[in-house]
Amino acid sequence: MSELRKDPLSGRWVIIAPERGLRPIQFGRRSKFHHKGTPKECPFCPGNEGKTPNEIFAIRDILSPKNSPNWEIRVMPNKYPILRVEEKMVKSGEGIYDKMSGIGAHEIIIETPSHYETIPRMPLERVEKIIFTYRERIRDLKNDIRLKQILIFKNHGEEAGASLSHAHSQLIALPIIPKRIMEEMEGARKYYQFRERCPICDIVAQELEDGKRVVEENEGMVAIEPFSSRFPFEVWIIPKKHSPNFGDVNDKEVKQLAEIYQSILRKMDVALEEPCFNMILHTKPYIEEGSPYYHWHVQIIPQITRIAGFEWGSGIFVNTVPPEEAAEFLRKATWKK
Amino acid sequence: MSELRKDPLSGRWVIIAPERGLRPIQFGRRSKFHHKGTPKECPFCPGNEGKTPNEIFAIRDILSPKNSPNWEIRVMPNKYPILRVEEKMVKSGEGIYDKMSGIGAHEIIIETPSHYETIPRMPLERVEKIIFTYRERIRDLKNDIRLKQILIFKNHGEEAGASLSHAHSQLIALPIIPKRIMEEMEGARKYYQFRERCPICDIVAQELEDGKRVVEENEGMVAIEPFSSRFPFEVWIIPKKHSPNFGDVNDKEVKQLAEIYQSILRKMDVALEEPCFNMILHTKPYIEEGSPYYHWHVQIIPQITRIAGFEWGSGIFVNTVPPEEAAEFLRKATWKK
Repeated sequence: MSELRKDPLSGRWVIIAPERGLRPIQFGRRSKFHHKGTPKECPFCPGNEGKTPNEIFAIRDILSPKNSPNWEIRVMPNKYPILRVEEKMVKSGEGIYDKMSGIGAHEIIIETPSHYETIPRMPLERVEKIIFTYRERIRDLKNDIRLKQILIFKNHGEEAGASLSHAHSQLIALPIIPKRIMEEMEGARKYYQFRERCPICDIVAQELEDGKRVVEENEGMVAIEPFSSRFPFEVWIIPKKHSPNFGDVNDKEVKQLAEIYQSILRKMDVALEEPCFNMILHTKPYIEEGSPYYHWHVQIIPQITRIAGFEWGSGIFVNTVPPEEAAEFLRKATWKK
Repeated sequence: MSELRKDPLSGRWVIIAPERGLRPIQFGRRSKFHHKGTPKECPFCPGNEGKTPNEIFAIRDILSPKNSPNWEIRVMPNKYPILRVEEKMVKSGEGIYDKMSGIGAHEIIIETPSHYETIPRMPLERVEKIIFTYRERIRDLKNDIRLKQILIFKNHGEEAGASLSHAHSQLIALPIIPKRIMEEMEGARKYYQFRERCPICDIVAQELEDGKRVVEENEGMVAIEPFSSRFPFEVWIIPKKHSPNFGDVNDKEVKQLAEIYQSILRKMDVALEEPCFNMILHTKPYIEEGSPYYHWHVQIIPQITRIAGFEWGSGIFVNTVPPEEAAEFLRKATWKK
């Protein structure tokens, strides 16, 4: 029997409709992640720095010059950016329509010098450096007052929209607050007005007490299958203590996030057979003052099923794996290198 | 140079980011539609009526019994429904979360007795019968007062989420107003409060005068590429005269919609090389009283590009084909049978 569940943040409804007899393991319907190309031709591999725009930030050998090899993490503007910092901010109309110039930033974060290394297979210290880099870029871009929101995300594999397989994430800084974040902010604000508590803090408390949707936890972070998961095996990583802005996390929290993030991706690789996935970091818009109700979090969405007309037309997602079952399935998955 | 554009209905922003040098024709990146299976094994083919639940409605030979062959259009409940009319309506909580039993209707509309006939290749009279059936089902389900909204949609091809290739559409009736419709209603209501005009009537007027985003028109309907198209070659069909509820369309309008709908799908088959697509019919919720601001419309979304992390995380879509170019490209496409 199916059930409609409401997301307490966005007000979005999801239909949890278990397909009888279909076990979670049978979900590998879309193609897996696979490596493409070779280090020689890959623009993200060491030695090919000339094929990309100049680097903005890197974790590299202290004596090595910019744009040379000998780096571990490297950040540069996207060669094909969807937004550019150099544009002028122009807002205008076209009859009844509103538009704005494409101002913003679009950066690539190369996560490893190795063409074939994925997050589950890299040393934990490297994952920590990736998370550290996210924080540094968020802190740095805060100085451009035209920017209202930073989104950091990762497309892993073709089914998740990645054109290159060398491990990388992306950063987009926007002159507007995007719809999804705005909805979460507004939902959280209403919840706070009603209860004087942050809704995500309440979610953390309820999930930790209940336990059935918890996939994993460490001292500072918890990974859950959300009550109203849109996608089978969607996982959210949430800091246990209230924390609106990812730019404010301390070094200990960077390590805690790296540890649980790698562990969740390892579990997915085992349980779902190396799926393509998207990761998205939701953090407070720059422009909002100290938020007692917003709480940063990381969403991981394995791309194993297809979205159809009903979802596009209604905004209601149909999820055939109840999050309680998905959590149990992931909890049991054990990484053996 | 890219541009941010705002949808006047939902407030959603889209980034129009043309990829230089990439012509519209180069977009066949995801797989095309293809036929699957044979008439013998297909549950939607005549002779196999026993493989589906009992029919609810059909356009069939007047002397033929229910659930026998000799039908042209056939409607029955989905064998694997995501919602059921038989369930009891129960709303409940689980700590801070809200849920509801999966009450509603989920029907299949088989569009042709032929396993291999697609809408572009069928006689126009059959397309009219499909549209007529949509109207009849909307009128009939209005009698169940638990239902607030009907969504009719079509998933054509695997990339659009269809598991069977035999031409069919689906109907889902919901005990809630879905998020997308709610957003459109609210946006339209605000627009109306400000201007005392329906926003979609204003869109129709501006697009017809301007012409650059118009793909086609007939006496009663216009097909446009929306100003803030989320997807390359997304097309909306809109009645020229204000009309909130699709259940109220007259026979002449049924014919007009059938004609332009078939013509747009023919153009897409020619221009985009038989893409998979989704169609969604947006109509006024049952529960809303006479709406001076809501206006039914049909959205057609060819599934030729992939959605990535940024879209999921932000709700902002990146469209690499400006709608003006897409409209020009589709206008030029000519169907030759």
